[in-house]
Amino acid sequence: MPYYISGVTADHRDLIARTTEEFREKNGVDVLTRHRVLEIDPGNRTVLVRDLESGAEFLDEYTVLLVSTGARAFIPAVEGVDLEGCFVLRELADSMRIKSFLEERGPRRAVIVGAGPVGMEMCESFRMLGLDVSVVDAADRPMPFMDAELALKVREKLESEGVDCMLEESLEGFEGDGSGTLRRVRTTGGALDCDIALLAIGIRPVTDLAASAGAALGVKGALRVDGGMRTNIDGMYAAGDCAVTFDAITGAETWIPLGSTSRKQARAAADSMFGAPVEFPGVVGTSIVKCFDLTVGRTGLDEGYAREMGYNPVAVSMEARSTPEYYPSGSNMALKLICDRNGGRVLGAQVVGDLGSGADKRLDVFAVCAAAGMTASDLEHLDLAYAPPYSNAVDVPLVAGNLMSGKLTGKPCSCDSHGLE
Amino acid sequence: MPYYISGVTADHRDLIARTTEEFREKNGVDVLTRHRVLEIDPGNRTVLVRDLESGAEFLDEYTVLLVSTGARAFIPAVEGVDLEGCFVLRELADSMRIKSFLEERGPRRAVIVGAGPVGMEMCESFRMLGLDVSVVDAADRPMPFMDAELALKVREKLESEGVDCMLEESLEGFEGDGSGTLRRVRTTGGALDCDIALLAIGIRPVTDLAASAGAALGVKGALRVDGGMRTNIDGMYAAGDCAVTFDAITGAETWIPLGSTSRKQARAAADSMFGAPVEFPGVVGTSIVKCFDLTVGRTGLDEGYAREMGYNPVAVSMEARSTPEYYPSGSNMALKLICDRNGGRVLGAQVVGDLGSGADKRLDVFAVCAAAGMTASDLEHLDLAYAPPYSNAVDVPLVAGNLMSGKLTGKPCSCDSHGLE
Repeated sequence: MPYYISGVTADHRDLIARTTEEFREKNGVDVLTRHRVLEIDPGNRTVLVRDLESGAEFLDEYTVLLVSTGARAFIPAVEGVDLEGCFVLRELADSMRIKSFLEERGPRRAVIVGAGPVGMEMCESFRMLGLDVSVVDAADRPMPFMDAELALKVREKLESEGVDCMLEESLEGFEGDGSGTLRRVRTTGGALDCDIALLAIGIRPVTDLAASAGAALGVKGALRVDGGMRTNIDGMYAAGDCAVTFDAITGAETWIPLGSTSRKQARAAADSMFGAPVEFPGVVGTSIVKCFDLTVGRTGLDEGYAREMGYNPVAVSMEARSTPEYYPSGSNMALKLICDRNGGRVLGAQVVGDLGSGADKRLDVFAVCAAAGMTASDLEHLDLAYAPPYSNAVDVPLVAGNLMSGKLTGKPCSCDSHGLE
Repeated sequence: MPYYISGVTADHRDLIARTTEEFREKNGVDVLTRHRVLEIDPGNRTVLVRDLESGAEFLDEYTVLLVSTGARAFIPAVEGVDLEGCFVLRELADSMRIKSFLEERGPRRAVIVGAGPVGMEMCESFRMLGLDVSVVDAADRPMPFMDAELALKVREKLESEGVDCMLEESLEGFEGDGSGTLRRVRTTGGALDCDIALLAIGIRPVTDLAASAGAALGVKGALRVDGGMRTNIDGMYAAGDCAVTFDAITGAETWIPLGSTSRKQARAAADSMFGAPVEFPGVVGTSIVKCFDLTVGRTGLDEGYAREMGYNPVAVSMEARSTPEYYPSGSNMALKLICDRNGGRVLGAQVVGDLGSGADKRLDVFAVCAAAGMTASDLEHLDLAYAPPYSNAVDVPLVAGNLMSGKLTGKPCSCDSHGLE
């Protein structure tokens, strides 16, 4: 949606993976839009549905039921959140509202509350459209899911792109012009004049409907499901942003609401609902965002969470080039690898790199290694695709593995980005 | 070196990872260039060395000895291989000779014998320099290490770039102009006028020295080593293109002479020579080449070799886009995944894609999965980094896994490149 707002994606219809017509024609699935389920009766296996157009209500029956109610943007209880010009970005309709507002009102100053992935993408979109942009976050850094040294590179990028970063400050409220239109955002660090504001401070699972029917909640208030995507209610399954998942590394219940996770859970749920034995293995928590011409991503655990979960995390940090020095198209990335001191298991990795650095490629390698339970020593022996336009003969994950093995075993190793000692 | 020849890499010195001076200063290693070891005496642990400048010979002692004699270009015993204008491309000196010849003689027509990776890279280099290029190969396709349907895309690219492909034809010899300068290449398909020819039909391990001292040879005549890079001769180790390695999937001895393998073997040898317990796990056989603006790569086993090794290979082929349709910078790739019917293990994958398609990223994912012993079902559950500028919510390896699982289990599945059924 940030790309639709900026115009990178021209037509909002391209963001709809499948229309109701396609569902019907290609898949034989009846999708009732503008209908709301008011109540689930798990005993009778019925749902009470209201047609939002006609207001008519009716009962529908099910054999198995999937709850995929998603998540909603978190809107804090502060003054002025209802002012015109104050937005969240969660549903397609939100992006259309923002785009209309931009076109009709021509706002010049934007404040983004929240420096997470949505905030970062919207910094770029608003800047592309020529707006002045300030971003406010209570954390000490943008992209708080990144460790401090890597987040610093994101902050530097934001500032070099003209984004004003107001960190370690919290939202206090919004002020209007007296006629209901936003004029100012108040924060603990002072007030910011603005014409448009985006609240991007997280989402919450939508669970009321299922919970009212007795579905149990898990971590972060998401619907608790097992490996077969079953809730505690017979015949009721849940998948997507409304449901918990499992951390594939620790085995712990977690809530990582991402499209990539939802899609896998949905497939698992479909199999499970039709009787196949399914054990969804969870996710390692891989996430990536483009922030201007920077790639920012992570997978697995960070040091703090790893320690919480009983590991003894060891980290190595490095700067690397995507290709050999002699091949001109390469560019730079910074990387942090986290392994368990006890056995060397890959617990997580974080990358920040130029868009052309293939930092995303290395992140995927680490994501697979983490999922496979590989160790630092396994990293050293990866057989990755090498040719000068693509990578180094000893590519970044191997060098990181070398450095980590050195740290774990005490063997001296001072590789440079070529893997040379 | 092809990039140095074309001028993409400006200075040949950038291709030297470390000079003798750097070895001495940074690593305390004495490198004697212009010296040849004539003989190894494993009983006395000495080597007989000739100083090629002075002609003087002397004995040097060792505790442990590493043989890293590399490989040489294969030169067939045909008429005219010594003509001026007839080259191989193996050593830095070869590339400097070719570059000088290009600059001094201004050849207009090039024939490349061999359509493997070196041949492909040189097609591009010669075309960049404005030469007419023909490529001759006895195989029915360029890049014979790729399966036919993917190699076809390489052929189409070569032809669209103006490269004349003469396939299923063999080299017969070279003809000169009477004064020792190349003028024509004779093949089973007729003669080709040319001013420069490159023989790129493979390499052979250089093993004479070690073999004379009693070192045993393995597959393809390379020096046989164990997981600790030890030859059968006490105190003698081998690594790099002169030595065999292991196929990490099958466990079989193999010879895959690549820089990426050499570097890992060298590190393993160094550890082993200094007493560390080392078990080099081998390689899965990952290889990639840029052919004009196409990425061509493979990892693991192809169907034929998998069958030879006792597997029951099942393949799925697909075309995919690197990013969602609505994100404009994406491009296309074709992919083939090979798994074992019995258990679904990932045996190999092949990709051909646009340079910007991130086909190399997906190849690395498959390479790690193959090394980790992952299955088609594991592919379906990979947690790869998703954001629209980088990938699809259900990215290519997952869709391939879905398709493969469908084929293995009989479950109907007709995903498109979004993973939608």
